[in-house]
Amino acid sequence: MTKPPLPAGHLQTLRQDLGDRDALAIADELGRLAPAERARIFRLLTKQKALAVFRLLDTAHQEQLVIGLRDEQVLRLVQELDPDDRARLFDEMPAAVVRRLLAGLSPRERRLTSMLLGFPEESAGRIMSPKFVRLVPEMTVAEALERVRRRGRDAETIYALPVTDDELKLVGAVELRELLLAEPETLVRKIMDPEVRAVRVDEDQEKVARLIQAADLLALPVVDMENRLVGVVTVDDAMDVLGAEEEEDLARTGASEPLGRPYFSASVFRLAQRRAIWLLLLAVAAILTVNVLSAFESTLETVVTLTLFIPLLIGTGGNAGAQSATTIVRGMAMNDIRSGDLLRVVLREGRVGLLLGTMLGTLSVAPVWLFTDRSLALIIALTLVTVCTLASLVGSLMPLLARQLGVDPAVVSAPFVTTIVDATGLLVYFLIARIVLGI
Amino acid sequence: MTKPPLPAGHLQTLRQDLGDRDALAIADELGRLAPAERARIFRLLTKQKALAVFRLLDTAHQEQLVIGLRDEQVLRLVQELDPDDRARLFDEMPAAVVRRLLAGLSPRERRLTSMLLGFPEESAGRIMSPKFVRLVPEMTVAEALERVRRRGRDAETIYALPVTDDELKLVGAVELRELLLAEPETLVRKIMDPEVRAVRVDEDQEKVARLIQAADLLALPVVDMENRLVGVVTVDDAMDVLGAEEEEDLARTGASEPLGRPYFSASVFRLAQRRAIWLLLLAVAAILTVNVLSAFESTLETVVTLTLFIPLLIGTGGNAGAQSATTIVRGMAMNDIRSGDLLRVVLREGRVGLLLGTMLGTLSVAPVWLFTDRSLALIIALTLVTVCTLASLVGSLMPLLARQLGVDPAVVSAPFVTTIVDATGLLVYFLIARIVLGI
Repeated sequence: MTKPPLPAGHLQTLRQDLGDRDALAIADELGRLAPAERARIFRLLTKQKALAVFRLLDTAHQEQLVIGLRDEQVLRLVQELDPDDRARLFDEMPAAVVRRLLAGLSPRERRLTSMLLGFPEESAGRIMSPKFVRLVPEMTVAEALERVRRRGRDAETIYALPVTDDELKLVGAVELRELLLAEPETLVRKIMDPEVRAVRVDEDQEKVARLIQAADLLALPVVDMENRLVGVVTVDDAMDVLGAEEEEDLARTGASEPLGRPYFSASVFRLAQRRAIWLLLLAVAAILTVNVLSAFESTLETVVTLTLFIPLLIGTGGNAGAQSATTIVRGMAMNDIRSGDLLRVVLREGRVGLLLGTMLGTLSVAPVWLFTDRSLALIIALTLVTVCTLASLVGSLMPLLARQLGVDPAVVSAPFVTTIVDATGLLVYFLIARIVLGI
Repeated sequence: MTKPPLPAGHLQTLRQDLGDRDALAIADELGRLAPAERARIFRLLTKQKALAVFRLLDTAHQEQLVIGLRDEQVLRLVQELDPDDRARLFDEMPAAVVRRLLAGLSPRERRLTSMLLGFPEESAGRIMSPKFVRLVPEMTVAEALERVRRRGRDAETIYALPVTDDELKLVGAVELRELLLAEPETLVRKIMDPEVRAVRVDEDQEKVARLIQAADLLALPVVDMENRLVGVVTVDDAMDVLGAEEEEDLARTGASEPLGRPYFSASVFRLAQRRAIWLLLLAVAAILTVNVLSAFESTLETVVTLTLFIPLLIGTGGNAGAQSATTIVRGMAMNDIRSGDLLRVVLREGRVGLLLGTMLGTLSVAPVWLFTDRSLALIIALTLVTVCTLASLVGSLMPLLARQLGVDPAVVSAPFVTTIVDATGLLVYFLIARIVLGI
């Protein structure tokens, strides 16, 4: 899968190889080109292949391509997309372009796309496909298969088939596999799973995707407020959602906002912009540490050696806090940890922090004693125990409290915890130093 | 989806509700119980439901249950698992138990399981299902559907069907949907996709899963060294792999090893153990900062005010480094960034760092000048520019170099970058201070 980087002759080679490569390989290469080159190569593709490649591109690349192609070409591609993929693309595009493209769609596609765009962002409604094949319980298996054959071409999936009553209320689901393996005259009612899970159209996307992941589903029915079937979310869309959510958690643990697009599609300015606000906020929060240090300036003047250990102590505290925060944020994302677990979690993390702090503190005594003196060895050891425990407590509490305030836990995870632990760690360090040294 | 926490009466309620809940809800609740309680509740389930629940449990929970149940009960469950899920469970269990369980399986299941266990860890061979329905190009669609009906019950998926020649060499693939929608007398050759992608049995699991994700596949054929079909990897297994890989990257960005199991299934000791080695290594690396500071002890004694800004400066540098490292690690995981891109990436990140450093440096001048003096304002501003640029360079270089050395980039990401940037940042700070202050 390793491809060469992009030397001068690369474009030439790519052009010659187009016929030999499959859609995924072409989409992969296109993603690494500058927008103008991308459009130039894309125009060389056959109609069929162009559509296959377009489907596989990231939304950001689709958007850049749409700008580089002629209107009738764009319209053909957009008309062929599934309504949910089309809605995702439109979301990224300027309103004027979206209006023009919507106007060019067939009435049915226009209606379906507008419906999806009407649901709140990040909701199940945005990623569901409104084109599905539904069955009714009174059908025989033969009739059901006949319906799948007749209507299946247009649906996003036919592998998980929702079953509804005449009022479109969801009453069950059948996997195509069951249908195919059953006797033709059996009633759908007999083989359907009446305990089928469904989600409401306004449910959060991540919850929907996690449900599909946990239950190993190929598709999940989506219902409106009256429990009427309005769409299905398929596993490929669930994977995209999980990918985006996990990029978000990872980015925020690394103190930035997610890029939301492949690395080389983001300009240097966009890269800086996704990070600037975080750096700035964290720097402002770090003014706390300046305050703590200036409060203890006289102590520092008396014992300059104390300064030597500042980065090591706050670094260790920050790491311990980041460890707790990252574990808890992940546990919450996986629904292993729920709001009611606050006390249980904090008690566990406090014990973990105490254990780790005791380990580090014990190990630090000999080397610090050797290179400085006994009282400093005592100060460092006591500070490590206290700071690690404190850091684990803060690191576990902050994401849990954030969720209760309706904030994404990942926002207040590792970087914020680290900064807060820095300031409190310094405070602990100097208080312990003053007591031990009697100043 | 919110469930109450675990009060005293919870077990009682759960026992009464078992009949009303679906398998996923029961698996979810069982995951939150202590192992002994879990086995007690599990034994109350009907045979059918017990299997459905067992399939949905995490491997860690399956393993704990196996220990708590009687042998014949365990054997029934294990016999019904798909071979790849069974191999994953066996991987976690003591060799003696595995031998006993293998001996109890039917010869065919034993052979398939042993085959999977023979492939290297983290390879495609470990997660593929060796039970598939294969077609041959000369079959008609009617014959192919008949074969799917006859053999489909036992296969893990029938939705993506590999096509091979008589020597089992992969020549194409058909989606069940195409088969169902085609005319009965059409030849499979006519409707199959001859450009089907396949992976070798020793390919890395994460690459396999990323391919399934990028190409929106339901299953991917796996071939041996002679291009003979040996299995298929299904999308649900790909999702599990991606989930595990992403947990790993997230954990390491937060300075710990992944838990590999739900939060409450890990003991306090295991939690501490996953973090201890990281804390220790990072603390040892932080001794660099002690060295730098002791080299500049005389400078610190002369200008104690310099100390006040140490945590803020190294914190900011650490954040900038973490931002770059996290972005690059993610880009590499998504295959957006490849080994050949090193120079291109480092140049971009250097510019991003310079941009961010200039922004922060400029903003810092006025407040620092106001609260201290002009020369300190100059020192802080220059340090911020230099440290942010340096941090971005280090943060992007380290994961790329790690990969070239065959180390997981996430291992040397955010936490290591932060620690290294701490030491170099201090060096830069004092050098600039000495020049500006002329000492």
